[in-house]
Amino acid sequence: MTRERSDVTTLQVDLGERSYPIYIGQRILDDAGLYRRHIPADQVMVVSNETVAPLYLERLTTALDGFRVASVILPDGEEYKTLEVWRQIFDALLAERFDRQCTVIALGGGVVGDMAGFAAACYQRGVHFIQVPTTLLAQVDSSVGGKTGVNHPAGKNMIGAFYQPRCVIIDTTTLDTLDDRQLSAGLAEVIKYGLIDDPEFFSWLEHNMERLLARDPGALAHAIERSCRDKAEVVAADEREGGRRALLNLGHTFGHAIETGVGYGEWLHGEAVAAGICMAMDLSRRLGWVDQADLERVVDLMRRARLPVAPPAGIDRDAFLRLMAVDKKVLGGRIRLVLPDRLGHSRISDDFDAEKLDQTLRQYGRSPG
Amino acid sequence: MTRERSDVTTLQVDLGERSYPIYIGQRILDDAGLYRRHIPADQVMVVSNETVAPLYLERLTTALDGFRVASVILPDGEEYKTLEVWRQIFDALLAERFDRQCTVIALGGGVVGDMAGFAAACYQRGVHFIQVPTTLLAQVDSSVGGKTGVNHPAGKNMIGAFYQPRCVIIDTTTLDTLDDRQLSAGLAEVIKYGLIDDPEFFSWLEHNMERLLARDPGALAHAIERSCRDKAEVVAADEREGGRRALLNLGHTFGHAIETGVGYGEWLHGEAVAAGICMAMDLSRRLGWVDQADLERVVDLMRRARLPVAPPAGIDRDAFLRLMAVDKKVLGGRIRLVLPDRLGHSRISDDFDAEKLDQTLRQYGRSPG
Repeated sequence: MTRERSDVTTLQVDLGERSYPIYIGQRILDDAGLYRRHIPADQVMVVSNETVAPLYLERLTTALDGFRVASVILPDGEEYKTLEVWRQIFDALLAERFDRQCTVIALGGGVVGDMAGFAAACYQRGVHFIQVPTTLLAQVDSSVGGKTGVNHPAGKNMIGAFYQPRCVIIDTTTLDTLDDRQLSAGLAEVIKYGLIDDPEFFSWLEHNMERLLARDPGALAHAIERSCRDKAEVVAADEREGGRRALLNLGHTFGHAIETGVGYGEWLHGEAVAAGICMAMDLSRRLGWVDQADLERVVDLMRRARLPVAPPAGIDRDAFLRLMAVDKKVLGGRIRLVLPDRLGHSRISDDFDAEKLDQTLRQYGRSPG
Repeated sequence: MTRERSDVTTLQVDLGERSYPIYIGQRILDDAGLYRRHIPADQVMVVSNETVAPLYLERLTTALDGFRVASVILPDGEEYKTLEVWRQIFDALLAERFDRQCTVIALGGGVVGDMAGFAAACYQRGVHFIQVPTTLLAQVDSSVGGKTGVNHPAGKNMIGAFYQPRCVIIDTTTLDTLDDRQLSAGLAEVIKYGLIDDPEFFSWLEHNMERLLARDPGALAHAIERSCRDKAEVVAADEREGGRRALLNLGHTFGHAIETGVGYGEWLHGEAVAAGICMAMDLSRRLGWVDQADLERVVDLMRRARLPVAPPAGIDRDAFLRLMAVDKKVLGGRIRLVLPDRLGHSRISDDFDAEKLDQTLRQYGRSPG
């Protein structure tokens, strides 16, 4: 019944029996065939938010004609990624009396995907799950790899599960309705892939940043595909972050401290990651792993992507140390960081001169007020 | 450093890389060697409740000398097995700034084990977990097999995870402090194993019920070991309840309806299961799968174990149907039940005369007031 469309790119995340495809294409959000292929029974719960639902929920629901579809609309923003809001998904599932064979679809950005995925992981100890990311950040990062969860006031993503979707459906035309700030936030994660292990992609980004900001469909498609490919490879090698997968946290230990420190929702996740990557580059420079010119190239690219290159005032050195101490990247009391060791390559390390980290934190940290 | 003790029985739950031992013995709750063998790093969070902590927490903490130990004490009772109370475990873990290498120990009955295990499954997407069950019900059933979770007002165990412990430490002397009602509740699950696939054990229980009620150590040890062995075998064959494991739900679909219907905490889980097993036997008799004498043997054994053999007033036929419809045993709208098809053997079936089920519900259901 479903014809393979030639204009859809399919990537595979190789995880044995938990393997799944990522579909990337234009106007595939309502491709009924894709859903029919991955939904095993008739009950479907769409989880979305107040911003995305008015734009796309009806199109998705129409494509799901023939299924028994219900939806739950969450408030929009990182500050709502809490246990309390998460609970609303269970209220909706139980109000519909949905059973173990039901499918949860996340329609929205990273917050919706993380919460819907974590609810799918826990409802009746696990039901089917599909990601339909509608922000650049979710399309290039959070929808792929199975990290789900919610925040705790004391730390980002502290409560969650590894839970893989049955498929990821990336409709690049949804970026047409994304606001500029959200687009830029997504670009921070795109630049991240270039810095972890893809110097060629970093260079491509330097040459194509203006096309991306102008939402050139070809440029966006390339950036999304390359990012998903890079991420799928790392996740396939290390699903539960025993080693290599931690590389994907480049800029995130500093970034999570920023998000928690200023209050969830004040800064977008991608904005905090951008500043965090600049801090990681600064530390690498102090360690002599990269030089001043490399640092400037990264800072320059972030600026061109309209992203912050330093944290906001209000988080000083002591606050950074305190906030970083609860991050999941801490092991046995030592701070473990992902640090570039040349432009386009990073390593995981807890073996660096702590004094240099202190210098970076003093340089970037500023007292409140 | 740790000497293998000759007075400790060790059973193995075979689950590939998630395999783990069940230790059964007297006064092993504070056997430091057992803990040292299964705790990989220095941070330990003991989760207990207001009833059990005053009795055993200090002994356990003393045995954990050398580790960094913290504890969180939850209120006691099924009515507290909620998302809200569960959250307190994360508050405690984060207040201590515990990292990914920490170990959560559940010290208590089934409610503590289910909530602590579910928190261990979700804290930083999964940390180490040890079960130290102190009620008969937890020792013979809930501590083994990795089912964890909390209740939702609309249904029992609706939110949870499959998450295996690193080991289960069953100290049979903790039953000395268990009240009579809790002991009886545990016996309901013990009798269940006899009815699922162990007629010899059922017969042994008929001959030894008075010894069990008198807390004869030898009789209790045999009943616990046999129950754990039966359960471990089923779990090893079907960890995530794709098929055979559902047999362990004998009496539970009716039982969950009773617990949800009268309000969590009014009836103990084991009491509801006892009444539920009698209802399942009644339905089997109506279907001609067992005869009246078999039904009477089961009812008689439950009575001798001081357990209820029928639900309380207040749940009529319609309430049963409504409550059973949200249970996880429902698939595609059909009610799937575990039903004895001879004394000492049960099967999973959704292919039975619905009129007979209706007769059972009318027989046992009674209107409120």
